This record gives sequence, C-alpha cells and structure tokens, in this order.
Amino acid sequence: MLILGLDPGLGTTGWGLIRAEGNRLSHVANGKLKTDTAAPLPRRLAHLDAMLSALLIDHAPDACAVEEVFVNANPQSTLKLGQARGVVLCAAARTGLEVGEYAARLVKKAVVGTGNAEKAQVHAMVSRLLPGVKIDGPDAADALAVAICHAHHLASARALR
Amino acid sequence: MLILGLDPGLGTTGWGLIRAEGNRLSHVANGKLKTDTAAPLPRRLAHLDAMLSALLIDHAPDACAVEEVFVNANPQSTLKLGQARGVVLCAAARTGLEVGEYAARLVKKAVVGTGNAEKAQVHAMVSRLLPGVKIDGPDAADALAVAICHAHHLASARALR
Repeated sequence: MLILGLDPGLGTTGWGLIRAEGNRLSHVANGKLKTDTAAPLPRRLAHLDAMLSALLIDHAPDACAVEEVFVNANPQSTLKLGQARGVVLCAAARTGLEVGEYAARLVKKAVVGTGNAEKAQVHAMVSRLLPGVKIDGPDAADALAVAICHAHHLASARALR
Repeated sequence: MLILGLDPGLGTTGWGLIRAEGNRLSHVANGKLKTDTAAPLPRRLAHLDAMLSALLIDHAPDACAVEEVFVNANPQSTLKLGQARGVVLCAAARTGLEVGEYAARLVKKAVVGTGNAEKAQVHAMVSRLLPGVKIDGPDAADALAVAICHAHHLASARALR
C-alpha cells in the first residue's frame, strides 16, 4: 500500500511517499513542490495544483494524509495557508482519494511517541523509521511524518476489524 | 467581453456573468454553487472545483474577478474561507484567465459610489445597473457587483491607454 503524506504551503508543499506492508514501512520518494513567489497568487495556486496532480498520476498512491492546520495568530498567514491547503485537498480528492487529516500533536505522537516533540526529533525519527531515506528538507520531513502517522492509523483500524 | 465575478465560499460560491460593450453593461447569467455540508471537506472542495470548471468551460468568460477576503476575527472561519477561495482562484487560473482581486470597499464604491454602502444598497444598484436581472440570492449579488467593478476597472485602464 502506497501512502502519500502532504504538508501544504503556498511557497513550498512538502510530500513524502511510503510503502506499508503489514507493519513494515519503507521509503519510496519525497520532495517539495515550489511556486514562484513573484507570480500572482491564482497562478501560483494553479501551478501547485498542476504539480501535485502530476505527482498523483505518476505515483498513484492508495491513500493520502495531510496535517491539520495550526491556526496562526496572524490571519493573513492563515488565509494564505488556507488557500494552498484548499488546492492540495481538492487535488487529492479529485483523484478519488480519501484524505486523512491529523493534528500536529497526533503526528508527533505517532512518530516520536510524544505530542510535544521538537521538529528535529521528528526529522530524526523519520530517518530511523525509513532506513536509507534522504529527506529533501523540513517540509518533506513533515510530509513523511504524516504518511507514517496515517500508516499507523490504517494498521490500527485493520487490527480492530 | 464576458466578465465573470465570483464570491467564494465553502458552502455557497456566488457567480455572476455580465457582458461589457464599451461602457454598456448587461446581465448574462448568475447563480450559486453549493456543496453538501455533510460531505468531508476535501470532497466538498473537489465538488466546488468541478462545478466551477464546468461553468468556466460552459460560458468561456474573457475576464474574471474575485473579492479580496475580509480577514475574519475567527481564524477557523478564515481558514475555511481560504480553502474555498484557493480552489476558486486555482480553477480560474487553470483556464488561463487572469483573476482581478478587489477589496470590498472598492467594489461598493464602484457599484454604489461609496465604500461604506450596505449590502441592500449594493443589491439594489446591481439590479439598476443590469436591467432585467433576476438575482439568485446575496452571494450571486456580490459576485455580480465584483464583475461590475472589474468592468469599470478594465474600461478605465482602456481609457488611460
């Protein structure tokens, strides 16, 4: 089962693809989708949409998950992130994928074991859980962490059935 | 020249299409795109995207405009609106359209003559400026107002050249 994790952002959207076989996880690919900060907002959103759609077609994941948004104190940042996030959720749903959403605390708990983990701890644990992975920056690390969290969630759901 | 105005929202996105010939404006069509409040967020966004894409193909507007977002005091509302707005801007830009963005004050000024106009005044002036129009609710009225604002802006830009 291929699981795609996404960390949406207008400037950079991180993505991480893992394979889950039973309880065994392995790394497939990760990276970031960047938009041109000098381009108008609608074009940046359409570019993000096109890049993500290409990625979804290319890798054909079976499942997809996104971190729930930490609502920023700055409403302009919240709006900007919301716009990028809307495009990301829409692109995933358009391919027929259901999109899991997880609070940041839950992602950290799934990966590190505590909801208060630092970013560096998450990064380190992602590297340990996915042997041989070379992580393409912090956004891709977050995306891989969400994918791992979703894999755990799906495994627990299977175990319960 | 066909101008499409849009008033994005997750539950209801208003749209209004007008024709501008020189300084003469006329109504073409207006309505609202509604998503199922019981559906998961990503599916609602993909539904909005599909409905708006169909509208854009059907009417093939030459220009498009959206109201700038009033950043709400409630960050959850801002996030929700941002997600719908991202999908709307993206769908328009994907067809190659440039998207004009106007502050609410500017839209009111263009339609009523003052930036402090009430919603009812905007509605009444839209009806007067577009003889024979039957407006499909407040979101469609706002969308028609944005389209009128964009028409004025394009006419001024032409006059300056």
